[in-house]
Amino acid sequence: MNSHLENHPHRRLNILTEEWVLVSPHRTKRPWQGKTESNEKKEQISYDPECYLCPTNSRISGTKNNDYKNTNVFTNDFGALLKDTPAFNYNNGLLKAEGESGICKVICFSPNHSLTIPDMDIPSLVKVVETWQSEFQKLGTDSNINYVQIFENKGSVMGCSNPHPHGQIWAQKSVPTEIIKKTATQKAFYKKEGISLLQKYIEQELKDGTRIISENKNFVTLVPFWAVWPYEAMIVPKRQMATINELTAEENVDFAQQLKTLTQKYDKLFNTSFPYSSGIHQAPTDGKSYKEWHWHMSFYPPLLRSATVKKFMVGYEMFAMPQRDVTAEFAAQQLKSL
Amino acid sequence: MNSHLENHPHRRLNILTEEWVLVSPHRTKRPWQGKTESNEKKEQISYDPECYLCPTNSRISGTKNNDYKNTNVFTNDFGALLKDTPAFNYNNGLLKAEGESGICKVICFSPNHSLTIPDMDIPSLVKVVETWQSEFQKLGTDSNINYVQIFENKGSVMGCSNPHPHGQIWAQKSVPTEIIKKTATQKAFYKKEGISLLQKYIEQELKDGTRIISENKNFVTLVPFWAVWPYEAMIVPKRQMATINELTAEENVDFAQQLKTLTQKYDKLFNTSFPYSSGIHQAPTDGKSYKEWHWHMSFYPPLLRSATVKKFMVGYEMFAMPQRDVTAEFAAQQLKSL
Ligand SMILES: O=P(O)(O)O[C@H]1O[C@H](CO)[C@@H](O)[C@H](O)[C@H]1O
Ligand SMILES: O=P(O)(O)O[C@H]1O[C@H](CO)[C@@H](O)[C@H](O)[C@H]1O
Repeated sequence: MNSHLENHPHRRLNILTEEWVLVSPHRTKRPWQGKTESNEKKEQISYDPECYLCPTNSRISGTKNNDYKNTNVFTNDFGALLKDTPAFNYNNGLLKAEGESGICKVICFSPNHSLTIPDMDIPSLVKVVETWQSEFQKLGTDSNINYVQIFENKGSVMGCSNPHPHGQIWAQKSVPTEIIKKTATQKAFYKKEGISLLQKYIEQELKDGTRIISENKNFVTLVPFWAVWPYEAMIVPKRQMATINELTAEENVDFAQQLKTLTQKYDKLFNTSFPYSSGIHQAPTDGKSYKEWHWHMSFYPPLLRSATVKKFMVGYEMFAMPQRDVTAEFAAQQLKSL
Repeated sequence: MNSHLENHPHRRLNILTEEWVLVSPHRTKRPWQGKTESNEKKEQISYDPECYLCPTNSRISGTKNNDYKNTNVFTNDFGALLKDTPAFNYNNGLLKAEGESGICKVICFSPNHSLTIPDMDIPSLVKVVETWQSEFQKLGTDSNINYVQIFENKGSVMGCSNPHPHGQIWAQKSVPTEIIKKTATQKAFYKKEGISLLQKYIEQELKDGTRIISENKNFVTLVPFWAVWPYEAMIVPKRQMATINELTAEENVDFAQQLKTLTQKYDKLFNTSFPYSSGIHQAPTDGKSYKEWHWHMSFYPPLLRSATVKKFMVGYEMFAMPQRDVTAEFAAQQLKSL
């Protein structure tokens, strides 16, 4: 490791968004006298009669869930995006708005109320991956859907209101901000170098090793050099693919394995059911060609130094740029060693 | 109000950053079963012997605070930015980093431990504004400081670890991401129209009225059309100025009055000591000319529908784009009416 990066405040460039993060390696000594979170305990019961996501229970809309055995998908009863939104443009002087249509779905990962991803076995996790794929396929071929965001909010500190293992998909007409940034950088790099940006990046990281958490034949899990959240991580397929639908059956298993390994390490890190938001970034589904896109799954966990002390992305971070205290290399070594 | 904007999901453009926000006006009916925050109560004692910000008390570094009567400024004992950081460049294949030097300061707004901005009288708030100005002046003329971020994190939910009324200044060598975006949009508009973007914007808003919370001779306080946080607001000087140091003594008073009015309304809204992060965005201090810049102060409060239910900016918001439930117009009318 470069000793400057280890010892002095510096900024690092995110090559996928072209945004900088301020890194303050010396700041870990800061005492914390502020707010603490409650230590999230795992659920004990496999079926909760009060849970609206458990099999056979009723949801607020009155609909009853199936007696599902693996995953279960339904349209969010309170979606932020709706299918029948009229197309409209609002242009009034400097003000600009547009109707946005789409759909919000909920995916239960397992009928078992008490499980989380790290507790599930590989065949069950492969079922989750396959569910993401079939939903992506269905939504992506709809001509009104140009981007499909698959994500999970885990833990109450990440705004998750039900511990039953589940994730979400919000699919919409316009391509969101983060995807526009990542498309531009990947396109420019591919044009210049004839290889995907992440292909080249993981080659360099695999050679170096400092930021690698784990790998198997088809996937690598690492803390990106430009990580913002203290224990942020990224799962990347070794072969360049624009979307998760290009994965082979063998690759699905390897992906599921990395999912399990990373989240197990997270739970061990602070001995808690580790909260995070995770999401899959992939090519838009607007019918254009995206041969430069290299899909990846990122994890943004808020905890900083224990199960109860999180990193606040507040004043400076909101008004100026993101800031972190531990280095990406330190975080990767911690996670690797578990 | 346009009925489409009132009733249907849509996205709105932030003309200062050119980023979109997803607005879902129908979604306020969503029940909330998730995490709740503790209702923040005001401090009762004007002096706390345990508080490291109260006059005459000692800080962790051993330094004793003055027996200050108005404001007190000192260098943060655990700053994320340090003055003596060596300049360095790290370029290693795809990885890029740079040494970042700067300084982090703490500003106590009042010796009285129990006050917050809405409780302070106008002369005391003018003293706070004058302290911001003298610090900005000192830091901005340092040739190693090219941007000065003034901000406040208020409330434990915003990562504030001490209720004693205080804000911070982080000043640094490089110009942060948010400022680069706002400089580009303001420059382009000024070049085309010969008037500052915010000058034109507040003219339109003052004529329309729907999003105005309050105004006086020299300032207007409004919910911007593109607000992200539920009760986000912006205080803007009516006369275009690149930095707070161009304010006249009369304008300082008007600024202090808007500060008090807005934060008093916030406290009344959910009958709580309203948490927020606030920050002043102004021109860089790198010696270049910024005649297009129109400084403004923004408030990003997390509460959504009560003192204990906040908006989570998590999965979708982190991976795709920000999302909000109530419209800017609704929020402005609520705040105006208090
Ligand atoms: O310096 P403080 O007040 O302890 O820290 C607070 O504000 C900083 C600047 O927004 C953040 O980086 C910290 O995460 C937050 O806890
Ligand atoms: O739909 P949920 O899980 O109730 O809601 C959660 O995730 C959404 C998508 O990230 C956020 O907009 C909400 O603020 C959060 O509470």
